[in-house]
Amino acid sequence: RPDSMLKKNEVGVVTGLAWTSVGGEIMMIEVNVVKGNGKIQLTGSLGDVMKESANIAISYIRSKAEKLKIDPDFYKDCDIHIHAPEGAVPKDGPSAGVTMTTALVSALTGVPVRREVAMTGEITLRGRVLPIGGLKEKTMAAYRAGVKTVIVPEENKPDIEEIDETVKKNLNFVFADDADTVLKTALLFATEPDQLLKEPLIHSGVDRNIKPALDTAVITQ
Amino acid sequence: RPDSMLKKNEVGVVTGLAWTSVGGEIMMIEVNVVKGNGKIQLTGSLGDVMKESANIAISYIRSKAEKLKIDPDFYKDCDIHIHAPEGAVPKDGPSAGVTMTTALVSALTGVPVRREVAMTGEITLRGRVLPIGGLKEKTMAAYRAGVKTVIVPEENKPDIEEIDETVKKNLNFVFADDADTVLKTALLFATEPDQLLKEPLIHSGVDRNIKPALDTAVITQ
Amino acid sequence: RPDSMLKKNEVGVVTGLAWTSVGGEIMMIEVNVVKGNGKIQLTGSLGDVMKESANIAISYIRSKAEKLKIDPDFYKDCDIHIHAPEGAVPKDGPSAGVTMTTALVSALTGVPVRREVAMTGEITLRGRVLPIGGLKEKTMAAYRAGVKTVIVPEENKPDIEEIDETVKKNLNFVFADDADTVLKTALLFATEPDQLLKEPLIHSGVDRNIKPALDTAVITQ
Amino acid sequence: RPDSMLKKNEVGVVTGLAWTSVGGEIMMIEVNVVKGNGKIQLTGSLGDVMKESANIAISYIRSKAEKLKIDPDFYKDCDIHIHAPEGAVPKDGPSAGVTMTTALVSALTGVPVRREVAMTGEITLRGRVLPIGGLKEKTMAAYRAGVKTVIVPEENKPDIEEIDETVKKNLNFVFADDADTVLKTALLFATEPDQLLKEPLIHSGVDRNIKPALDTAVITQ
Amino acid sequence: RPDSMLKKNEVGVVTGLAWTSVGGEIMMIEVNVVKGNGKIQLTGSLGDVMKESANIAISYIRSKAEKLKIDPDFYKDCDIHIHAPEGAVPKDGPSAGVTMTTALVSALTGVPVRREVAMTGEITLRGRVLPIGGLKEKTMAAYRAGVKTVIVPEENKPDIEEIDETVKKNLNFVFADDADTVLKTALLFATEPDQLLKEPLIHSGVDRNIKPALDTAVITQ
Amino acid sequence: RPDSMLKKNEVGVVTGLAWTSVGGEIMMIEVNVVKGNGKIQLTGSLGDVMKESANIAISYIRSKAEKLKIDPDFYKDCDIHIHAPEGAVPKDGPSAGVTMTTALVSALTGVPVRREVAMTGEITLRGRVLPIGGLKEKTMAAYRAGVKTVIVPEENKPDIEEIDETVKKNLNFVFADDADTVLKTALLFATEPDQLLKEPLIHSGVDRNIKPALDTAVITQ
Ligand SMILES: [Ca+2]
Ligand SMILES: [Ca+2]
Ligand SMILES: [Ca+2]
Ligand SMILES: [Ca+2]
Ligand SMILES: [Ca+2]
Ligand SMILES: [Ca+2]
Ligand SMILES: [Ca+2]
Ligand SMILES: [Ca+2]
Ligand SMILES: [Ca+2]
Ligand SMILES: [Ca+2]
Ligand SMILES: [Ca+2]
Ligand SMILES: [Ca+2]
Repeated sequence: RPDSMLKKNEVGVVTGLAWTSVGGEIMMIEVNVVKGNGKIQLTGSLGDVMKESANIAISYIRSKAEKLKIDPDFYKDCDIHIHAPEGAVPKDGPSAGVTMTTALVSALTGVPVRREVAMTGEITLRGRVLPIGGLKEKTMAAYRAGVKTVIVPEENKPDIEEIDETVKKNLNFVFADDADTVLKTALLFATEPDQLLKEPLIHSGVDRNIKPALDTAVITQ
Repeated sequence: RPDSMLKKNEVGVVTGLAWTSVGGEIMMIEVNVVKGNGKIQLTGSLGDVMKESANIAISYIRSKAEKLKIDPDFYKDCDIHIHAPEGAVPKDGPSAGVTMTTALVSALTGVPVRREVAMTGEITLRGRVLPIGGLKEKTMAAYRAGVKTVIVPEENKPDIEEIDETVKKNLNFVFADDADTVLKTALLFATEPDQLLKEPLIHSGVDRNIKPALDTAVITQ
Repeated sequence: RPDSMLKKNEVGVVTGLAWTSVGGEIMMIEVNVVKGNGKIQLTGSLGDVMKESANIAISYIRSKAEKLKIDPDFYKDCDIHIHAPEGAVPKDGPSAGVTMTTALVSALTGVPVRREVAMTGEITLRGRVLPIGGLKEKTMAAYRAGVKTVIVPEENKPDIEEIDETVKKNLNFVFADDADTVLKTALLFATEPDQLLKEPLIHSGVDRNIKPALDTAVITQ
Repeated sequence: RPDSMLKKNEVGVVTGLAWTSVGGEIMMIEVNVVKGNGKIQLTGSLGDVMKESANIAISYIRSKAEKLKIDPDFYKDCDIHIHAPEGAVPKDGPSAGVTMTTALVSALTGVPVRREVAMTGEITLRGRVLPIGGLKEKTMAAYRAGVKTVIVPEENKPDIEEIDETVKKNLNFVFADDADTVLKTALLFATEPDQLLKEPLIHSGVDRNIKPALDTAVITQ
Repeated sequence: RPDSMLKKNEVGVVTGLAWTSVGGEIMMIEVNVVKGNGKIQLTGSLGDVMKESANIAISYIRSKAEKLKIDPDFYKDCDIHIHAPEGAVPKDGPSAGVTMTTALVSALTGVPVRREVAMTGEITLRGRVLPIGGLKEKTMAAYRAGVKTVIVPEENKPDIEEIDETVKKNLNFVFADDADTVLKTALLFATEPDQLLKEPLIHSGVDRNIKPALDTAVITQ
Repeated sequence: RPDSMLKKNEVGVVTGLAWTSVGGEIMMIEVNVVKGNGKIQLTGSLGDVMKESANIAISYIRSKAEKLKIDPDFYKDCDIHIHAPEGAVPKDGPSAGVTMTTALVSALTGVPVRREVAMTGEITLRGRVLPIGGLKEKTMAAYRAGVKTVIVPEENKPDIEEIDETVKKNLNFVFADDADTVLKTALLFATEPDQLLKEPLIHSGVDRNIKPALDTAVITQ
């Protein structure tokens, strides 16, 4: 049973790409943000490196809160839960860094994630995107799941040539060297914030009524 | 001595289904919610994945508190204890996710659980129900214990054909792809909330005087 | 040197029954409750399962506080220490659940425990009593120590036939399927609460001036 | 270099007796009590059982605070440090229970300890004194160090016959079945409290101006 | 793909030098300081010794806060995150002490770091710089990455002769025996504080409007 | 490269003596005390016994605060960091007890330490100094580093005869049986407190304007 894309654009859920001994795989990241007192929970049998990635993503967002139109006090007024489903499968490595960053920004701003976008890349504390392994296998999994656009670290550009021809033809590639490019590509910022806010969101605790200071990305193949 | 069903519909106790090397088994989940200060206790020799399932269930319910008519501050005004009896038997895996979710919602709302319903399924942070293993053995155990209805992840539908014919004939199957379906099937929502509240409950700390925004499920074989 | 019974009825001390590779044994459980701020201490080289039993016992009592005439705030206004003497001997398993429950209720209410009663049984979060192993050896140890009445899980009834004839003739058996039966059998509730309170107790921090809502058990052989 | 007794009666220092593979030994227990906020520190390479003994001793004293004329709030207004010198030598077992109890009561009341008394025995939460091993070796060490009186658990009476004749002739034996007997024997309660308080003590944080409700022990050979 | 220098002078990012079994390497240290409540996070698969280095750097800066024009309350009013990118690569040892100290001072004062400077050296609690290993390999990596100046512990002066001739010719060497020399060499203190503050910084929570009491270092080959 | 003495008398830095498989060594102890909220940090790859020594030193000083003219609230108004440089070298054992005690008293009072004094000895909670091993190797290291006076536990007096003749001739030996002797020998108490306070100290958070109640030691060979 191959993994499949989400049925609609959702808030706080991002399609990541994982690489195991048996090939590439879709790995969803889910984030819930609720009113609380600053507790962070990380579940899904995450290894130490992946847990560190989650904390790096949170610290990065805190340092950019103003720019992202996120209440800078969210770290103490909310509880944040980051989960990678299929909880019995151990997961590790830094390459879900951009995925967790995007899911967190989506959950904290209420901006939905484009369901047809998948991504992979290590994030640093200052928002740089570092290269990852298994690009060939990961993009194959993305293609099979029906993904249209994959976000890939800029330093992985040379690895593109190893990718299967069919996969290469059918996917848009966005090369990112920083988190800005990732967020602009994956998040569905409304032309007008008012439009975004028509439909009430299920999660609470975060104001999301101002358009973030990022331009909508132009995705080119 | 085969495990048996509860003698009456209770609040905070749900019949789960476990799968061990020697076959399927009934595995009760008990939840106590009392006034407190936000402590969560997990007992019953639970492994790490199962403990994570419990925390995922709690986070999911927090994100849906309003819809479920649960005071969203329950996480800090109550102490929650989740227990899987037969405390010396080690238990693990994500497939008690729906069972713990249901027991928690029952304990937090005061709505009793249908004693003749058993269930199995992984829960995600956003309430999706993911497939599990051992369906054949688990449903056999449910049948032997006298269960009438089993709730099964929708993605496990193809595994139905491996189930014993007698078991298949004697059990109602409810396929769930999200927590809503599980809760509607298992919880005994009163036609009128007033009716529900006639009998005072033993646990305290949670208002339960409004009918949740879920319709009673229609169970079809 | 065989273990022996207490010399008089005491508050907060209950005679349990343990089962080791060399036979059955008396295992006392001692509980001290003092004014404090909610700390729970468990000592006596207790294993993880036995520590969980202690926490299950405390949660159960919290959920029944009103019925047991115990101040429901005891969990935050008292410090509770549960100890199993002979501190160098490792102890584990769930079968001291009823013993710890009884010792806690005694310490929290000030009601003395009948010194001639011993007990064994797993407790669940909702107060059900589950079966245990080693009944033959445990009852032999009870008999040798001079115990008159043993409380045994109802589901262990079939194991009675394996018990030594002399032991069976000389002990009263009380079969319990829930904590109520255990407490009614082991605690020495006064006919009149005023009578109970004549003699001041050494421990403090808990009001114990109202008769609990349990009837005195009638013990039949 | 054999261990030796203290040069004068001190507050908060008690001579214990330990038993190792190479024979008996003097093992001092030192206690400092200072104004603080309830922190308990245990040092001297203590094993888990010995750390539990320390906590049992503290809980026992809390439950008897009024009788011992100790401010019952000491557990939250003081910091307590219990140390067993020769910090590199691992130490374990429950038999320093009475020693730690005595050192704590001395430090908390300001009553000095008789320097010529040594002791060994497990303490329970209710103050019972349980038997220990290695009595022959321990008393030999006490005799060599110049100790005059040893306090021994009452249940160890039968082991007296194995003790070396010279040791037996030169030591007073006090058999204790509870902590009261230990404290009355080892602590130097003044005939008049005023007398005790002439000399200011170095430690602070605890009132010690009322004579405890224990009679001075009469030591008989 | 050799590591490369940053593209511009940044705040809170410093180029360190690491030594592995396969040669020297550039190892960036990133620091984020945001308003918070005193939490310290250390990520990047850091070993115990390297984590201790980070805490030593923070303590050193706290003891020099006044001199460095840093609000001495930063330890409780900010959250500090120190990260070493390439999160899956385990890193350890004390030789990033000066790098972390410099990145912290930069982040806390808002003073940018000279991008063409790299450094290595253990820091002590009092700011002394202690010698490190692998100087030959580390300076080779610095040279290859385009670094112009390397800061080296004074006690490593004798090791200079083992360095490759080309490397020696193309790098400026600054020998430091204390943190002052390191900070003066690496931080880009403005001639006039007003000049420094023209460009608003992305991180917040720290006033940085006074010129620190350190003179700009004169770098000599 | 042999270790060397400090270049001047400093506050909070004391020269200790360590003993490893390859001989004796100088081991500095550095202490920083800053305003804070009672956090204690111990770094330098310290083993459990050495960490306990640090806590014993702090407890001892708390119990003597008044006599040492130290604000007794320092434990909750300051943060204390104790570090043993050369952070990658594992260190353990109780023999740095006196060194840590002296460095702490120096940092807390602002009284400088005589740079030409080195020391070794276990400290107990009541300030007794216990014997240590490796005296021959430790004093050799002291002599080579240029130390003038070594403080040695009184119970190590018999080991003096094993010390190298040249070492013995060139070092002053001070035998200490308690912490008082150590502090009087190593700390540079001013004849007049006013004199001491002329030069402002770099660390803050502690008043140090009263002369401690210890006499300056007379060092005799
Ligand atoms: Ca999958
Ligand atoms: Ca970019
Ligand atoms: Ca079972
Ligand atoms: Ca559905
Ligand atoms: Ca026994
Ligand atoms: Ca019953
Ligand atoms: Ca000894
Ligand atoms: Ca007695
Ligand atoms: Ca690299
Ligand atoms: Ca310098
Ligand atoms: Ca050295
Ligand atoms: Ca002396």
